[in-house]
Amino acid sequence: MCSINELLRQTKGMKSDHSINAEIISVGTELLLGQIIDTHAPTMAKILADCGIGCLRRTTIGDNLERLVSALTESLSRSEIVITIGGLGPTNDDLTRDAVAAALNDELVFEEKFAADLKYYFENKGLKFADSNLKQAYRPSCATQIDNPNGTAPGLCCRKVGKIVIALPGPPGEFNPMADGPVRNILRGTYAQKEQSQVIHSRTLRIVGIGESQVEKQVKSLMNGENPTLAPYAHIGEVHLRITAKSSSIKQADLLIDPVDDKIRKILGNAVYGIDDTNLESAVVQLLQQSNSTIAVAESMTGGSLGARITSVPGSSAVFLGGVIAYSIPAKVEILGLNAKLISDNGSVSQEVALEMANCVRRKFNTTFGVGITGNAGPGSDVDPDPKPVGLTFVAISSASSTRVETVSFRGIREDIRQRATQLALRLIREQLI
Amino acid sequence: MCSINELLRQTKGMKSDHSINAEIISVGTELLLGQIIDTHAPTMAKILADCGIGCLRRTTIGDNLERLVSALTESLSRSEIVITIGGLGPTNDDLTRDAVAAALNDELVFEEKFAADLKYYFENKGLKFADSNLKQAYRPSCATQIDNPNGTAPGLCCRKVGKIVIALPGPPGEFNPMADGPVRNILRGTYAQKEQSQVIHSRTLRIVGIGESQVEKQVKSLMNGENPTLAPYAHIGEVHLRITAKSSSIKQADLLIDPVDDKIRKILGNAVYGIDDTNLESAVVQLLQQSNSTIAVAESMTGGSLGARITSVPGSSAVFLGGVIAYSIPAKVEILGLNAKLISDNGSVSQEVALEMANCVRRKFNTTFGVGITGNAGPGSDVDPDPKPVGLTFVAISSASSTRVETVSFRGIREDIRQRATQLALRLIREQLI
Repeated sequence: MCSINELLRQTKGMKSDHSINAEIISVGTELLLGQIIDTHAPTMAKILADCGIGCLRRTTIGDNLERLVSALTESLSRSEIVITIGGLGPTNDDLTRDAVAAALNDELVFEEKFAADLKYYFENKGLKFADSNLKQAYRPSCATQIDNPNGTAPGLCCRKVGKIVIALPGPPGEFNPMADGPVRNILRGTYAQKEQSQVIHSRTLRIVGIGESQVEKQVKSLMNGENPTLAPYAHIGEVHLRITAKSSSIKQADLLIDPVDDKIRKILGNAVYGIDDTNLESAVVQLLQQSNSTIAVAESMTGGSLGARITSVPGSSAVFLGGVIAYSIPAKVEILGLNAKLISDNGSVSQEVALEMANCVRRKFNTTFGVGITGNAGPGSDVDPDPKPVGLTFVAISSASSTRVETVSFRGIREDIRQRATQLALRLIREQLI
Repeated sequence: MCSINELLRQTKGMKSDHSINAEIISVGTELLLGQIIDTHAPTMAKILADCGIGCLRRTTIGDNLERLVSALTESLSRSEIVITIGGLGPTNDDLTRDAVAAALNDELVFEEKFAADLKYYFENKGLKFADSNLKQAYRPSCATQIDNPNGTAPGLCCRKVGKIVIALPGPPGEFNPMADGPVRNILRGTYAQKEQSQVIHSRTLRIVGIGESQVEKQVKSLMNGENPTLAPYAHIGEVHLRITAKSSSIKQADLLIDPVDDKIRKILGNAVYGIDDTNLESAVVQLLQQSNSTIAVAESMTGGSLGARITSVPGSSAVFLGGVIAYSIPAKVEILGLNAKLISDNGSVSQEVALEMANCVRRKFNTTFGVGITGNAGPGSDVDPDPKPVGLTFVAISSASSTRVETVSFRGIREDIRQRATQLALRLIREQLI
């Protein structure tokens, strides 16, 4: 496998007095036409940032040789590194190999080792080998192989005239391990041995219970910094503050980030619930574990979504005992044990019903906390004789010593309203625990 | 509001002897660095295809004026229409307005009407108006307004020297209604009055219960067509076959698609469960409604995900009565009513437990069908004394007349395994109903 420093030594013309830039080209008509959402390019962009390589531009091109060669040529005129994703398969639509060779003024050569690996891959899986697959045994003459243990298309690392093109296959099961493994290692070489290069490193503080405008207002004084910079992003039911620093290493960047992180936490206090990939459900599961608490849920409007979020966290079985999806009146009365008169008096979508759902499920499952969620997610109104407006939601938390119920009117489509309801429930559980 | 035909008449140099091409530029450092997944560009690409406009290229650029002007200039040199998404806000990072003016050799002018609308928007929401917001009252002199009822940044429709630039804001609640409403109407004008233009129209057949390679093998004879073309896409637990036709109108394209659609259904039979945006849960809810059946679920490994998927379908309350999230042994025994000895004899993750979960939940909720899901989603192994391998999953369906249980070993990460388990459950319910 090629390391980028080796490549840099072998090639000429790459400027060493500034930081290295890269571009990403996603290849595929289905991507271009929006039939598939591109998650690979964001993954690759994050890896570039981790490795201190600037990402100048991302481009999406269909399965069209001429356009792909143009895009590659343009990217190579601006950036030292170009990473392509997709188009390495065996069919006529797979044109990346040819396009990379053309853009680098190189030719394709047949690689016996690739052909032998391909045949072994098929044989090993008990599959018949079709000669059309031999297309994947060709490589630009300047390319070396990036191993792909999960598929037939080897990745390519091409270097010529001071430029590097890395070509990766599109299937997620092949792309992800290659990008996060060998490609990360190749790219990492750039700052490990290149003293001048810079790392761009971010830390995201995740905030719940305060709206975006309020967060911005409170941390406004910190938003004029140049290094690190601070940028807010609104998500459903939470706000992220991203602190980004440039420095010579991730460790040095962290030293620049730390004081800003501290100041934000002093200003926003407990509203900061986690960093980076820690989502609200994992923060809540962790708090439940730390306090030796257990929980059960009674879900009407959200139909199991809260349980699904909590149990998405590995290890949640230590704290989450289960729940009742009480999507009908019989389920609320016969399974959860609510009083039928409470429902007929107040309607299914009511504060009283949310509270009693939380109480009943806590007692049924014998847990520290019970959660009850009822509401109208739309698009139509519910079946109550006195229908409640779309978006009206009641979330209750019950413990042996206290109960609490929140009433909110969410806007948005059905899935937004349901997502906001589970987010509110997780926030209320968290508030009970801190 | 401007119509594209009006614009075409007003502008010069646009070739009328070929179909119109467009490009999409997504603007934002957070997009470029992969901190946010871009779903707007795919949405816009689909709208372009619906309107018969080819999408040549998609580009993502950070909040950098020089680079944004370059990207706009390049796109305008290749394509008649450029659509930008993002960067229309009031902050210093919002540069799209300036970049569009620069790329079109135009200047920004202050628009009294925009300013009045802005002030009214704030006043109406009871918010204080900051003068910094007046940035949003500027427009390139060649621009007309695209209404944005859900935010402060008006969209811009700019026309100059035979080119059109449409600039839209990035927040989803503002972008989506504008793209699907006024922008679609502007773009639709291109083929409504332009006889020569072509529509690219797709229909996606959604297939469950057959793997991708098997689907490809069976429809291979249909995959060599040039118009329509046929392309398979693998998703978690299902395969999509996209039929794409070029023609003078959507109706004409549908006439080309229909015979291919018929042939695929003859070959694959009931495995085709729906088209386009019909997902498996909505197909299942519809079948339950048509057969006057009801259902309840008992979920262990999936923690409520199956209930969440079913209740994501509007109107599901007519057929889905609820469920038990039996994530612990006490929940299985005390809430669902399983025999504790059945669990200790066979383990929680077993065929016997899945079957009895399905039976118990059906009787408890008095429904036509009951579903039971148990398994090990990983990453660790479960708490059974004899732990089961990660991915091992049992899904059972119970009705008054029959029971069925499927045993599978799924690969992938925790969320994949859970998703595949709910997909299998929905497929088994569907098979009971057809």
